[in-house]
Amino acid sequence: MTVIIRGGTVVNADRAFRADVLCYGDKIVAVGENLDAPVHATVVDAGGQYVMPGGIDTHTHMQLPFMGTVTADDFYTGTAAGLAGGTTTIMDFVIPDPKQSLLEAYHTWRGWARKAAGDYTFHVAVTWWDESVHREMGTLVREHGVNSFKHFMAYKNAIMADDETLVKSFSRALELGAIPTVHAENGELVFQLQRALLEKGIRGPQAHPLSRPPEVEAEAANRAITIAGVLGTPVYIVHVSCAEALDAITRARAGGQRVYGEALAGHLVIDDSVYRSDDLEFARAHVMSPPFRGRHHQDALWHGLQAGNLHTTATDHCTFCAEQKAMGKDDFTKIPNGCGGVEERMAVVWDAGVNSGRLTPSEFVRVTSTNAAQIFNMYPRKGVVAVGADADIVVWDPQGSRTISAKTQFSKGGFNVFEGRAVRGIPTHTLASGKLVFNKGELCAEEGAGRYIDRPAFAPAP
Amino acid sequence: MTVIIRGGTVVNADRAFRADVLCYGDKIVAVGENLDAPVHATVVDAGGQYVMPGGIDTHTHMQLPFMGTVTADDFYTGTAAGLAGGTTTIMDFVIPDPKQSLLEAYHTWRGWARKAAGDYTFHVAVTWWDESVHREMGTLVREHGVNSFKHFMAYKNAIMADDETLVKSFSRALELGAIPTVHAENGELVFQLQRALLEKGIRGPQAHPLSRPPEVEAEAANRAITIAGVLGTPVYIVHVSCAEALDAITRARAGGQRVYGEALAGHLVIDDSVYRSDDLEFARAHVMSPPFRGRHHQDALWHGLQAGNLHTTATDHCTFCAEQKAMGKDDFTKIPNGCGGVEERMAVVWDAGVNSGRLTPSEFVRVTSTNAAQIFNMYPRKGVVAVGADADIVVWDPQGSRTISAKTQFSKGGFNVFEGRAVRGIPTHTLASGKLVFNKGELCAEEGAGRYIDRPAFAPAP
Amino acid sequence: MTVIIRGGTVVNADRAFRADVLCYGDKIVAVGENLDAPVHATVVDAGGQYVMPGGIDTHTHMQLPFMGTVTADDFYTGTAAGLAGGTTTIMDFVIPDPKQSLLEAYHTWRGWARKAAGDYTFHVAVTWWDESVHREMGTLVREHGVNSFKHFMAYKNAIMADDETLVKSFSRALELGAIPTVHAENGELVFQLQRALLEKGIRGPQAHPLSRPPEVEAEAANRAITIAGVLGTPVYIVHVSCAEALDAITRARAGGQRVYGEALAGHLVIDDSVYRSDDLEFARAHVMSPPFRGRHHQDALWHGLQAGNLHTTATDHCTFCAEQKAMGKDDFTKIPNGCGGVEERMAVVWDAGVNSGRLTPSEFVRVTSTNAAQIFNMYPRKGVVAVGADADIVVWDPQGSRTISAKTQFSKGGFNVFEGRAVRGIPTHTLASGKLVFNKGELCAEEGAGRYIDRPAFAPAP
Amino acid sequence: MTVIIRGGTVVNADRAFRADVLCYGDKIVAVGENLDAPVHATVVDAGGQYVMPGGIDTHTHMQLPFMGTVTADDFYTGTAAGLAGGTTTIMDFVIPDPKQSLLEAYHTWRGWARKAAGDYTFHVAVTWWDESVHREMGTLVREHGVNSFKHFMAYKNAIMADDETLVKSFSRALELGAIPTVHAENGELVFQLQRALLEKGIRGPQAHPLSRPPEVEAEAANRAITIAGVLGTPVYIVHVSCAEALDAITRARAGGQRVYGEALAGHLVIDDSVYRSDDLEFARAHVMSPPFRGRHHQDALWHGLQAGNLHTTATDHCTFCAEQKAMGKDDFTKIPNGCGGVEERMAVVWDAGVNSGRLTPSEFVRVTSTNAAQIFNMYPRKGVVAVGADADIVVWDPQGSRTISAKTQFSKGGFNVFEGRAVRGIPTHTLASGKLVFNKGELCAEEGAGRYIDRPAFAPAP
Repeated sequence: MTVIIRGGTVVNADRAFRADVLCYGDKIVAVGENLDAPVHATVVDAGGQYVMPGGIDTHTHMQLPFMGTVTADDFYTGTAAGLAGGTTTIMDFVIPDPKQSLLEAYHTWRGWARKAAGDYTFHVAVTWWDESVHREMGTLVREHGVNSFKHFMAYKNAIMADDETLVKSFSRALELGAIPTVHAENGELVFQLQRALLEKGIRGPQAHPLSRPPEVEAEAANRAITIAGVLGTPVYIVHVSCAEALDAITRARAGGQRVYGEALAGHLVIDDSVYRSDDLEFARAHVMSPPFRGRHHQDALWHGLQAGNLHTTATDHCTFCAEQKAMGKDDFTKIPNGCGGVEERMAVVWDAGVNSGRLTPSEFVRVTSTNAAQIFNMYPRKGVVAVGADADIVVWDPQGSRTISAKTQFSKGGFNVFEGRAVRGIPTHTLASGKLVFNKGELCAEEGAGRYIDRPAFAPAP
Repeated sequence: MTVIIRGGTVVNADRAFRADVLCYGDKIVAVGENLDAPVHATVVDAGGQYVMPGGIDTHTHMQLPFMGTVTADDFYTGTAAGLAGGTTTIMDFVIPDPKQSLLEAYHTWRGWARKAAGDYTFHVAVTWWDESVHREMGTLVREHGVNSFKHFMAYKNAIMADDETLVKSFSRALELGAIPTVHAENGELVFQLQRALLEKGIRGPQAHPLSRPPEVEAEAANRAITIAGVLGTPVYIVHVSCAEALDAITRARAGGQRVYGEALAGHLVIDDSVYRSDDLEFARAHVMSPPFRGRHHQDALWHGLQAGNLHTTATDHCTFCAEQKAMGKDDFTKIPNGCGGVEERMAVVWDAGVNSGRLTPSEFVRVTSTNAAQIFNMYPRKGVVAVGADADIVVWDPQGSRTISAKTQFSKGGFNVFEGRAVRGIPTHTLASGKLVFNKGELCAEEGAGRYIDRPAFAPAP
Repeated sequence: MTVIIRGGTVVNADRAFRADVLCYGDKIVAVGENLDAPVHATVVDAGGQYVMPGGIDTHTHMQLPFMGTVTADDFYTGTAAGLAGGTTTIMDFVIPDPKQSLLEAYHTWRGWARKAAGDYTFHVAVTWWDESVHREMGTLVREHGVNSFKHFMAYKNAIMADDETLVKSFSRALELGAIPTVHAENGELVFQLQRALLEKGIRGPQAHPLSRPPEVEAEAANRAITIAGVLGTPVYIVHVSCAEALDAITRARAGGQRVYGEALAGHLVIDDSVYRSDDLEFARAHVMSPPFRGRHHQDALWHGLQAGNLHTTATDHCTFCAEQKAMGKDDFTKIPNGCGGVEERMAVVWDAGVNSGRLTPSEFVRVTSTNAAQIFNMYPRKGVVAVGADADIVVWDPQGSRTISAKTQFSKGGFNVFEGRAVRGIPTHTLASGKLVFNKGELCAEEGAGRYIDRPAFAPAP
Repeated sequence: MTVIIRGGTVVNADRAFRADVLCYGDKIVAVGENLDAPVHATVVDAGGQYVMPGGIDTHTHMQLPFMGTVTADDFYTGTAAGLAGGTTTIMDFVIPDPKQSLLEAYHTWRGWARKAAGDYTFHVAVTWWDESVHREMGTLVREHGVNSFKHFMAYKNAIMADDETLVKSFSRALELGAIPTVHAENGELVFQLQRALLEKGIRGPQAHPLSRPPEVEAEAANRAITIAGVLGTPVYIVHVSCAEALDAITRARAGGQRVYGEALAGHLVIDDSVYRSDDLEFARAHVMSPPFRGRHHQDALWHGLQAGNLHTTATDHCTFCAEQKAMGKDDFTKIPNGCGGVEERMAVVWDAGVNSGRLTPSEFVRVTSTNAAQIFNMYPRKGVVAVGADADIVVWDPQGSRTISAKTQFSKGGFNVFEGRAVRGIPTHTLASGKLVFNKGELCAEEGAGRYIDRPAFAPAP
């Protein structure tokens, strides 16, 4: 397939410039003014629009098995929803059970992901430790294109990694040239706060944020950063939701440490009043961890993105339908954690970030795509509109607008945390691997068209 | 015994003023100008001198059993040495073994302490957790005058308290009106760094500070403060040795949290070059935890005392002789941790603090005595020169000077970390419970004269 | 006059204890349990109440001449209102015109103040500089009991002190043993922002806070602190109103610098929504500088008081009636700046500070009285309930309550920024110089009974 | 001229990759593996070397008139020295006298610069204010390619800009799409400290750093940042030399403000012990403002570059010979301020930055070239090795080494602040506008070959 995108303004992380973009096969083959194109080429008119690298969502959970059920979106519907929103690559998570082989879990997830419509890659969680974990981390890095390992500091009595596991896994990652990532919440405090709330008879979703206050997140972020700093490894903090955790990152970075932070689209624009709704189904639908926070945290997260103390935007897309959420109707600790967003992230970040003057279009590209590609070693295959890069492109109409609603979304789950939000700045076309998969509202995602993206280990600079 | 101290300047934490001080029995009975005194009264001429509340050393380990031996100073020699230096009360530690009854350990320590020459009181360590610990904390507070509990975040596989123990013990202390204290070092990181250094063949005392970098202390301080903040209890951080841990305290305090910090006289003036000495015996003699730090940390600690972000000065007095220290000659992790100082603290803090202009005499009193008495609820029995207070008084000659040396010290152990330091500002007389126990260089400490000081729980303000 | 206060709990900055208090003449002559008193002594029953040192309001402007008129409260009505609220000493300001002799202005103010019903003392403003100012600062310190000098960094083209004046005056204060104080706002920025707002046609009171954003205050605070730090003098920042200015203080203090900060009762509880009222008279009545701020600044100020980064509470009492305020009805820059509060400060700080658990009663005493007395060298004559101190005492009923209103206030001006606020914790009796001037709602303030308080220069510690 | 650089690793700010680079005329025309080149092309063998964008020194003073004399390096020798060190563009300063027309001064400097061997462009200083300055700033931006204006906050009674000038000039810059830059030192404090030191008889170069302590720089940085923040303009702080000034930048950036900072190669590696040398000529040779600082400031500056809180590296190249420096032999305030470095910057930053592991090669490119090009709107003409960019290239041998010495330098002045420093990582070839001007130690700089670089104003994103 040959596609030429004509008349737009290419926006990369370093600059914006007028150029046509020619794609052939799955690659970008030319970027320049007034390009010639074969007569049979599909022409996308990008006049008045931006031509940007397809989004990378660094944090999704498609088809996640949970309590005998699975999330509403599988790898097909989830990646398809992403394509509709301009996101062409997702980074999902392999989460082995404690005592389960990492490789076994990895292959299970690879199997599930085969149906994906867009490109995907995996962080692998380290949820326990012994010599086999040490060994299999090596195998995953050397033979399976994995260069990032995830650690949950929350979820006591389940997948929580204690300090010993953190130290050993971070050390191992360092010697392999992989980067550790962490879900930062002090699991012990969360557990005790949950117990205390339940004992007091506070059992509804309004208890959820009370059991996970900002300090609990900041403590864990600080601890992970300290461990990484002492060992000399970079570290990436997923879903930074509050000013205090961001402060821990900012301090460490100002001290010269290589720490990266991820913000979720939801945390950037939604506040914790949702948990105090009288509509308990609505409140439960917002239960995720870390929870939505008070408003001033949103300002802080934007400042983090502006200052370069936060680097990526993601969604933690993990959708459950109302029936699933109702599993916790009598006990908030049993509400499946997770919300959607893979389809809306780009538009939400543009609208709240670029339209408000917080971010330039180039900075938008940086935090929705380029930084992710660089931190996780997919650059310049991903993250830039340039010759030789994958033809993963979103054409963006800064004047186009729409109102987000579960009624019109492609993703499953029947709920949308951004319901009713009017956004200006929307994708008109998405190219994935050179194919026009989204065209003015029409989605033609193909099951199984997505590819697994190998991410090589970091090596000494050449 | 009646003693009148004539002609001096009384220095309390709030102000300094000319006054005589009359002591009768174990109490101060009058403070004022030109006091009358019985003819038989012992007269101490304090002309040109300061009359201050006796020092409180909030952190000592006398007669500590360790690896089949005990520290060089027992409760008699240790408290006597304190009296010679102007310290009239020590706060020592009951340290139960894991699984040992707190009460049993408490009574053991009470037995050992009977020979003390100066007043003493105990923090009790919580080194493990079950319902009996919960119960015995209550007994200790209600029946035995204990209002502070200590938690070691270091010493993995020994007395380290994990997060669960911290949360439960802090909660219990809160409900009892007691204050939790912590030794803040991340025990897991220390353990792994020790292993890594030994594996690399770095086995001498120079490895000690490398295994306990400032970040490791700051992480634990931040964690303890977070737990305390989430639960709503005050917390006291013992032996804060570095800028980064102090920063954690300063941040929390600036956020309105009640956090207290203790600095050791040694950390205030000694730097980490001692560990790099070619004289390995000398280097080993300085092994304590946290270790001595680079010079800029000393400035930070002084600033902390000046700003009110640190509150007390102590010593962690815990002396071992060279033979005992040599147990770790082939493995730095086996060197018994501890240094002296109970005898020198007051003079060292005065010389480096008051003579340098960092502290006023009133601020000196605050950080060597008054704050300790207030934080641990011994005030105004201790910590102030006022009618009704215990007659624990040091008469201080700001022009007197001496050179500190193990050769002339009263304490045991044969080593002095302040060896060769010339100080200006020394005690000329010490009164303990109204008795003149130190008089111009002559120590007349009496075995068993020291009393156990009950410290009631904190209660709602009257 | 002899007064005995029986059965209360004396609260000083260092502790609270049951005691009677006996006053004779203008002094406290005994503090203790079950005191004997002469039969003729007036007995105040303080059962169930606190007996605290009378409040010191460090910042008032009584009888201030302004634009051809004067503030509504003169020294009599203003100090009388203070007595009704438990404040027994005010610190007012002598403000010479540029080029006016400091001494001349000082004597003018002394004349005005003769009618005061409560004790008073003066900060003297340095609004310009030449050799005569240098000389007269010396005279004021040595002969007139002035130990603090005020500097306005705002009010360009009027009384603003430029950096040269700050440097020279701070240096002079240092050599005299006086403390410089500053009104911290960058006058140039305020001036340009005012011009810009007027040019845009934004002329009403809602423009007032827009012309004085927090950054403008923080910049000036930081500058004054830097100048003080470089010269080696302590410095006192008046009416700290925002988190950013407090941060500058906190940073400097954490670096060991002697910086003090003052919070106004109004800034602690009132937010900037008052300026957006449709009732323009109401909005104008709140015009003062710095302006009221957004809510999160209130939390910050409380944290500052809790942490010891702010030290005093005051009011900047400076009342204008509605007609005077209306001078600026077409131009917000012409609204006379100032609000009241001398009468309500103690109750507002107690209610919002002690009842909320932010401050203990002792800490309340510290920030309403003791710290002021110590910083400005009136201690222990003021600021403590102790033998020998002035008999300035407030008896406080922690269960008493009332609703603040202009209708029932003693002070003039016809407006109250705390209107409608219900407070729990109120004064039942006030003693000033040993006289019972306020007794269960009845005020018997005597014109001229107030005394000028000499404040000696700071000298080297004895 | 056609040049092909073969076999090297191209390093740009975003990544490093193997490629040949073909230059034709003054442009890069191809970048790729195994490029064909015309037979007549000059071939540079870059095997084992890095091929990087030529350095941009954002801060030089060539041919600066000073006290009746001029700096040792004129635009020819200065730019030639830069080429020898891999720097292909300098940003110099037009400094009008107070009351002098900005345009007149601009044209004078343009005339002087005609002899330059490398490309150059000008920041224009605003040293005073009236309507003509306002008008001429517009002319400079619209007609003369100036998009940055410099403000000196130091140098009282000479070129110091007061707050009024800062506010007005920053506002004007904002409306023109230009960026204000500042030399941040509080000129009043410097002036008074200089006077005080001279009065005490401290007249030698050791007094220089005492008259300009870090706080003085930090205050001014904070003030400029505040003014910029209130007005809503970005701001660029030149020669950030100390931790405290960097902290002001870091704080503002963390709050979302667009603040940029520049570090000098000298400040990154030289400490203030140079001023305490007994060799007064040596000490004087190091007199520049801000002065060299204590060692811990160097760590801070490196952390700033690593964290992205500092953005560019420069030199403030401004050379005076020993005779000129001797003008201040009896009065340190008369020593001409300035040191060299344009020739050594790249090697010094590489050696201390990349060899130490602080910076990756890509980060080196970012802070020596790309960020400067982006901040000052010369990108992608400058700052990147890419098709269409100017053929300004340095070929860098990471294994090559040399020892810096005044004896072997190309620049004038007879002194080198980096004397004796051995560096590993040196330029082997420099291309400027497509010409091979430096070739393995041989410099063939051509007088007048340098071009004036127009820098357009910033405009809304396309």
